[in-house]
Amino acid sequence: LATYNVKFNPDAKTINAEEGITIAEASDLAGITMDSPCGGKGTCGKCKIIVTVGEPQPPTDAEKDFFSEVELKEGYRLACQTLVTCDMDVTIPEDSRIRAIKILSAGTGQEIILHPNITKVYVELEEQTLERQIADFSNIKEAIKSKFPDVCTDLKVLRELPNILRKSKFKITLVLDGNMLISVESGDTTKKNYGIAVDIGTTTIVSTVVDLNLGTELAVASALNTQATHGADVVSRINFTVEEKDGLEELGDRVINVIKQISEYACAEAHVNMKDVYEVTIVGNTTMTHLFLKVPVRNLALMPYVGVFSDPVDVKASELGFDFNPDANIYVLPNIAGFVGADTVGVILASAINKSETIKLAIDIGTNGEVALGSKEKLLTCSTAAGPAFEGAMITHGMRGAPGAIERVELKDHPIIQVIDGGKPIGICGSGLVDAIAEMLRLGIIDETGRMTDPDDLDISPELRKYLRRNDEYGPHLVLYEHDGHDVVVTQKDVRQAQLAKGAIKAGIEILMRKLGIKLEDVSEVFMAGAFGNYIRKENAIRLGLLPDFPLDRVLSIGNAAAAGAKMALMSKEAREEAVRISRFVEYVELATDKNFQNEFMDAMMFPNESELTFLL
Amino acid sequence: LATYNVKFNPDAKTINAEEGITIAEASDLAGITMDSPCGGKGTCGKCKIIVTVGEPQPPTDAEKDFFSEVELKEGYRLACQTLVTCDMDVTIPEDSRIRAIKILSAGTGQEIILHPNITKVYVELEEQTLERQIADFSNIKEAIKSKFPDVCTDLKVLRELPNILRKSKFKITLVLDGNMLISVESGDTTKKNYGIAVDIGTTTIVSTVVDLNLGTELAVASALNTQATHGADVVSRINFTVEEKDGLEELGDRVINVIKQISEYACAEAHVNMKDVYEVTIVGNTTMTHLFLKVPVRNLALMPYVGVFSDPVDVKASELGFDFNPDANIYVLPNIAGFVGADTVGVILASAINKSETIKLAIDIGTNGEVALGSKEKLLTCSTAAGPAFEGAMITHGMRGAPGAIERVELKDHPIIQVIDGGKPIGICGSGLVDAIAEMLRLGIIDETGRMTDPDDLDISPELRKYLRRNDEYGPHLVLYEHDGHDVVVTQKDVRQAQLAKGAIKAGIEILMRKLGIKLEDVSEVFMAGAFGNYIRKENAIRLGLLPDFPLDRVLSIGNAAAAGAKMALMSKEAREEAVRISRFVEYVELATDKNFQNEFMDAMMFPNESELTFLL
Repeated sequence: LATYNVKFNPDAKTINAEEGITIAEASDLAGITMDSPCGGKGTCGKCKIIVTVGEPQPPTDAEKDFFSEVELKEGYRLACQTLVTCDMDVTIPEDSRIRAIKILSAGTGQEIILHPNITKVYVELEEQTLERQIADFSNIKEAIKSKFPDVCTDLKVLRELPNILRKSKFKITLVLDGNMLISVESGDTTKKNYGIAVDIGTTTIVSTVVDLNLGTELAVASALNTQATHGADVVSRINFTVEEKDGLEELGDRVINVIKQISEYACAEAHVNMKDVYEVTIVGNTTMTHLFLKVPVRNLALMPYVGVFSDPVDVKASELGFDFNPDANIYVLPNIAGFVGADTVGVILASAINKSETIKLAIDIGTNGEVALGSKEKLLTCSTAAGPAFEGAMITHGMRGAPGAIERVELKDHPIIQVIDGGKPIGICGSGLVDAIAEMLRLGIIDETGRMTDPDDLDISPELRKYLRRNDEYGPHLVLYEHDGHDVVVTQKDVRQAQLAKGAIKAGIEILMRKLGIKLEDVSEVFMAGAFGNYIRKENAIRLGLLPDFPLDRVLSIGNAAAAGAKMALMSKEAREEAVRISRFVEYVELATDKNFQNEFMDAMMFPNESELTFLL
Repeated sequence: LATYNVKFNPDAKTINAEEGITIAEASDLAGITMDSPCGGKGTCGKCKIIVTVGEPQPPTDAEKDFFSEVELKEGYRLACQTLVTCDMDVTIPEDSRIRAIKILSAGTGQEIILHPNITKVYVELEEQTLERQIADFSNIKEAIKSKFPDVCTDLKVLRELPNILRKSKFKITLVLDGNMLISVESGDTTKKNYGIAVDIGTTTIVSTVVDLNLGTELAVASALNTQATHGADVVSRINFTVEEKDGLEELGDRVINVIKQISEYACAEAHVNMKDVYEVTIVGNTTMTHLFLKVPVRNLALMPYVGVFSDPVDVKASELGFDFNPDANIYVLPNIAGFVGADTVGVILASAINKSETIKLAIDIGTNGEVALGSKEKLLTCSTAAGPAFEGAMITHGMRGAPGAIERVELKDHPIIQVIDGGKPIGICGSGLVDAIAEMLRLGIIDETGRMTDPDDLDISPELRKYLRRNDEYGPHLVLYEHDGHDVVVTQKDVRQAQLAKGAIKAGIEILMRKLGIKLEDVSEVFMAGAFGNYIRKENAIRLGLLPDFPLDRVLSIGNAAAAGAKMALMSKEAREEAVRISRFVEYVELATDKNFQNEFMDAMMFPNESELTFLL
């Protein structure tokens, strides 16, 4: 057979093609994937091309249906109908292509290729005849075999298949989860393809609805984790499952119900039908993902603190009682160890520390403070029992960063506060607490040990002094706001809680630095993750010693990076594979066995002397 | 590093091994798999060897535990403890090996290697420590990674895992279905590993319990397919599902319930706990496997007669309501076309026609008569609507081949009958019917067209003539047995049913021969499959023209070869893969569209003239 050169524009790719193959086949050889829902029968008109050099054959009937005479003279053709008959230049318009889209992941601004695990393919099947007597599912496999050579399916689909095929006159949309055909829908539903990324925090749960065709976020909803009824921290929840019959079941149901509610809410907001949600990705700490799956957590709280799984888990949404598409898959990201979970894998995925040439530090400040330090050479993580102080829990008037929370504090002659969404304050969130303590440190209201000084000994304005009080309910405290007995205060006890939290995190950082044998100046960048990390003022975090004494411009807030990791895993199969590699690459450091931890912790609880802080001077 | 030659006996395999590796590792390199449930820790003593040439190191403490001083002097060691330190000859006793077993498949006497999809592995896990803090499932994966590098599991196992592990002190048996860990059991349960092979016939269902460790059949049970209440043939059952709301559900439940009952019965007989059944393989015609899975069959009865699936189907036993191990897998063998099902794949698998150098013919005489003709070059099949006459249905006193059935008939001065299990006859089965008709043909009681001649015109003994009667109930008939009004007779109508059945099969054979362009003398062997095929007298089958005029010694009864195929798929992964290849290799011939079929069928319904039968003279 003769061969000819076919050049594809605007790609400027040339291939040598055998005479008589179609332009569609030739484009495939050139690595350009064209749209062809009808499978090359010339009935859908999606594979339009323009032959700019070389004479194409006379138009087929199919081509006459789709193009005017003028267009045909200009070289417009269908790629599935046009044969290679001479050397040709062919332009493939954007609309005729199937293309991966580059999207921005939240947080660190990494680019990922949109390549979700879920694919929707519209096909117009050839109806069977006595001459072509293949089974319904074989008919589907035949139609998509070039793109999906190894498709399999489940009994549910087989049971529904014959009716759907004939009702829809063999024009159907296939929903594929990898190579698994999970759903067959009537007509062309390819536009409706959604997924949800969920971050199960110990305190807060967030659901994000994503358009899997476009890689765009459509809506976000969040709510408190109602497991908190049975304890603010993971250890009390683990104990609840041990002490209470059906405790595991109850905590599992609680998180599932919250996810149901916020997902429904977010879908409604995005005008997305829950049945069009085909995949859900989950991050959370190891206890949270275990509880979500109702897998026993008892051993996470007992020496040597081991979980049941660290690989990713796939489970049908319907098996957990969700109302998404009945065959929707739930993908739980892998975890690293008993106390470094899928959320940390998400943070590393989103911040790409595991690929970094230089050493970077990431701190995810949630109910547990997870720390990751290292580079592509070696990456260490640990989990510090920071407690939920910075999420507003265990704090006298603490609340999460929601409307009504005091998020900023400055102390002049009186406390100057900023409230989320304006209006009257109803509590204080993490960033407000950090501000308040930093200001109290600056004015000497608390000393390096965290003790509140007698107001009378302080060199402050008499006006401000009025806000420093002591009573039976709160002990010594600073009043930030008062109105008709609705106070918002920061107490001595609150300062102690913050000290414990920041001390744990600081000690973790110190131990990882020592294990890695590096000094602070070797760290090129610090990422603060978590909702709290987004709003905190970096200088005040350093003032408290929550962050190391570090140049401010190298400290970056990357937002809820755990959730960003869940979104990446939802949008990209490659990101999902990367998550598994991360979970195996990262080394977990158990602080409980580190002989220095107690000393480090004691030291780290102290507030730094202002004179020690190089970069804040 | 130095290397040494290690020779393994009695295999006489020599490999060159690096100094310092263990004999267990060296044997692996030599392709000899040794038993090592403890994972090479020296605690199980299963990997005994004898060093016959070369000086092994002094025995380790572990070896001292397992061997006497005399044995140690004779060179007895454990392969996991003994290092390669010089050139050595090592004998590996049979008991220390894991070996594939050759077993005989029923029917054609093919040998297959016992290599079931289900593997049970006993392991003694290392308990986690703070230094080795891996998750429970990772701990398992670690222990078996050399043999099963890609193990995954499901949520059910993860939920049970932590408790089972600790209750059993980390000594557990893993049940693997391929790479999927489906169950974790306390202690060593490797001896209990069973599967069931099921043949769903339109008329009869058979379950066989197999020991998957030994490849032996432990018990067989069978029962009538209670779907027959809604029609004897597949078409009336398909119509039932179309006409009756929940008809599909009902027919599915009926076959599931029969399988439950006979499997329970067979397990009880074999003293096998249903929970120790980990896999079930299923053959049946396409309608039967669809109904079993409750997949709509409507289109199997409408032009162009297509099913929903032809690939194999895997489904959890629990999903269909079975009481086997909750994670047991049900594997339905692939089918070929709407009317050539997994049962025919089973027949071809068991008879290996698809690998034959010469052309062979297989006939599976059930309610449908499936015919396969060809060799490894090309293999054709068709399905003939034979009807259940040879299974005893639609016959006046017909019954299946069970105790009380007349299975042999000879006509002397009076009918001489042989009854299964002796005793009084209660009906006649297929082989009895064939005998009776052949004898009636021999004596001219029926003519070539199948018409019963007036007894008065016959040249037979007056005694026998008394058994030829006519009445309102039966029309013209032959009495085989009479006692207190409990007759067993063969009527004119019964002869017509047999003619239709054998005519359909004969016509199918003729058409396949024509399609393949061969003559009868090109066929090297004829296999008769099906329970009926086992008991029929070949000469009488030829006398009726059910089988072609063929040398008797080349006609083989291969028993229930469909069931044998199911057993092979249960015992051998390779056989399962072969079944898929068969389903794709075999070409289906649709008789409905063959323009010659009606003529062939009309011809084939006639009985052959005795003078035409070369080989019976």
